[in-house]
Amino acid sequence: MLPVFGHTNPDTDAIASALVYARLLTRQGVEAQAYRLGELNFETPYVLREAGVAAPELLTDLPAGTAVALVDHNESAQSLANLSELTVTRVVDHHKLGDLTTAQPAYLRFEPVGCTATILLALHREAGLTVEPVDARLMLSAVLSDTLHFRSPTTTPRDREAVEVLAPVAGIADVEAYALAMFAAKSDLGDTAAGTLLRMDYKVFPFGDPATPQSVQTWGLGVIETTNPGYVLGRQTELLEAMDHARAEDGLNGVLLSVVDILREHNTTLVLSATEEKVLRETFGAGTQGGRADLGNRISRKKQIVPALEAYFTPQS
Amino acid sequence: MLPVFGHTNPDTDAIASALVYARLLTRQGVEAQAYRLGELNFETPYVLREAGVAAPELLTDLPAGTAVALVDHNESAQSLANLSELTVTRVVDHHKLGDLTTAQPAYLRFEPVGCTATILLALHREAGLTVEPVDARLMLSAVLSDTLHFRSPTTTPRDREAVEVLAPVAGIADVEAYALAMFAAKSDLGDTAAGTLLRMDYKVFPFGDPATPQSVQTWGLGVIETTNPGYVLGRQTELLEAMDHARAEDGLNGVLLSVVDILREHNTTLVLSATEEKVLRETFGAGTQGGRADLGNRISRKKQIVPALEAYFTPQS
Repeated sequence: MLPVFGHTNPDTDAIASALVYARLLTRQGVEAQAYRLGELNFETPYVLREAGVAAPELLTDLPAGTAVALVDHNESAQSLANLSELTVTRVVDHHKLGDLTTAQPAYLRFEPVGCTATILLALHREAGLTVEPVDARLMLSAVLSDTLHFRSPTTTPRDREAVEVLAPVAGIADVEAYALAMFAAKSDLGDTAAGTLLRMDYKVFPFGDPATPQSVQTWGLGVIETTNPGYVLGRQTELLEAMDHARAEDGLNGVLLSVVDILREHNTTLVLSATEEKVLRETFGAGTQGGRADLGNRISRKKQIVPALEAYFTPQS
Repeated sequence: MLPVFGHTNPDTDAIASALVYARLLTRQGVEAQAYRLGELNFETPYVLREAGVAAPELLTDLPAGTAVALVDHNESAQSLANLSELTVTRVVDHHKLGDLTTAQPAYLRFEPVGCTATILLALHREAGLTVEPVDARLMLSAVLSDTLHFRSPTTTPRDREAVEVLAPVAGIADVEAYALAMFAAKSDLGDTAAGTLLRMDYKVFPFGDPATPQSVQTWGLGVIETTNPGYVLGRQTELLEAMDHARAEDGLNGVLLSVVDILREHNTTLVLSATEEKVLRETFGAGTQGGRADLGNRISRKKQIVPALEAYFTPQS
């Protein structure tokens, strides 16, 4: 039974793609089981409830040597702690390639599209397999979530085409209304602790060139995508405390938390200290006032934040 | 114009797959051009001549930041010297994933099959494109070459199916005869200098865990696949001298040269010193006599030699 899982701090794509890929592999004769590496965010339970699907079980560790399949991530910092001891036999992902290596030739499928589920739709087609309605709903939800219903600059024509093809199979007549319901569920944060909000969609990245270790910096980058940014920004003081705590706990060089207004397509980033302030100024030309930097329409961590920081921290040769 | 190239010391797959992938990309609207990173071996000119195709131009360097596509390799030690400064946008490969990283999401297609060309055939099908006869001949030649006409344990059902499908398109009625002619051309080494023979199909591998640098060892692994092993082994003294020279020149921890008898499916490996003798004994249980170790039917460097050495040199945690 091949375990299939997405990244820690799972989002809807990490959960939906694990479920769909596990089912696809099983239909192709490779018995597979989906897992999650952390607590669900506020959007995914809505998606699973509407699809009538139970959340995958939590996975905390696996014995060294276990064969695994990764979806929606490939960097060890975003995976099971002992990933380097596991045998990665399959990866389906749409992120940049990080520190992954494999001891044997493996099946790797990376495409620069907006969502892992868009690649999974292609895998169904290539295998000549029909898409089941429940899988269609999960994949469609993942695409809408990852692309913020096509608002994100990561959106590609393939993602739009996937939604067009999947909506009738999933039985979703009004995609716009469904997307807004997903985003409303995601934004209904209630009295969730600030530390939990920070960690909900939070990834740790090593920047710089590993060949010159003194250049390497490790940053934690959190994002809160919401239709109600006023609520999140109103909790700025608590959130900055949680960021300070995360920086110390994880031994990071810097922490950023971007509050992304989904409907206005705007990024307001909370700035912890002079370190982050300097980096934001030099990387994005963004000034900081009252602990906040206006990053404008940079709403994609993957496409607009991470590559810029990577370039900033990588020494020129 | 996107440069497409296979590994240094190119074999038939590295050349044929660069040509075919460049043409496929161009047909799909991505202007691409095939290159080679070194001199052709003795088999590839036969294949190109029969196909009526000119050898791709030699590429020695590219400016930092140039977008490139890799076929049949992914490790920096087997690519252009400044690979880490280039922008890898596409990889089609069937080897284990090494030290490759990408700054942006890329198109990566790795499958554990016997030959890169087998994956390229799938890409044609997925794109709904017919295979041109010249491309069919190049892909078929690559599969026969990499799998030693299905003798290698790297052979998969997909490779056999590819040859079955491609042979009629290529107009090759007797695949067995064509494969033997390819292997005869490859074995016609004439008075080629020993240093050239060593480097003809030669790859440098870093073994061990980069996280514990003192465990890392760099080895050069050469292979001469031939239908006339007696000729090669008759030049043992010169070849050992060439290996000694390579070890010093490349700053290697060890060098091995495997003489693979294609038709008998047998590997006789030349052993340079006590270092290599110890590693072969402890990894494969193979004793050395008169400067040669009998590695039996281990005719695949990729599947039978490299993973065993990787396991040997990686410290147990």
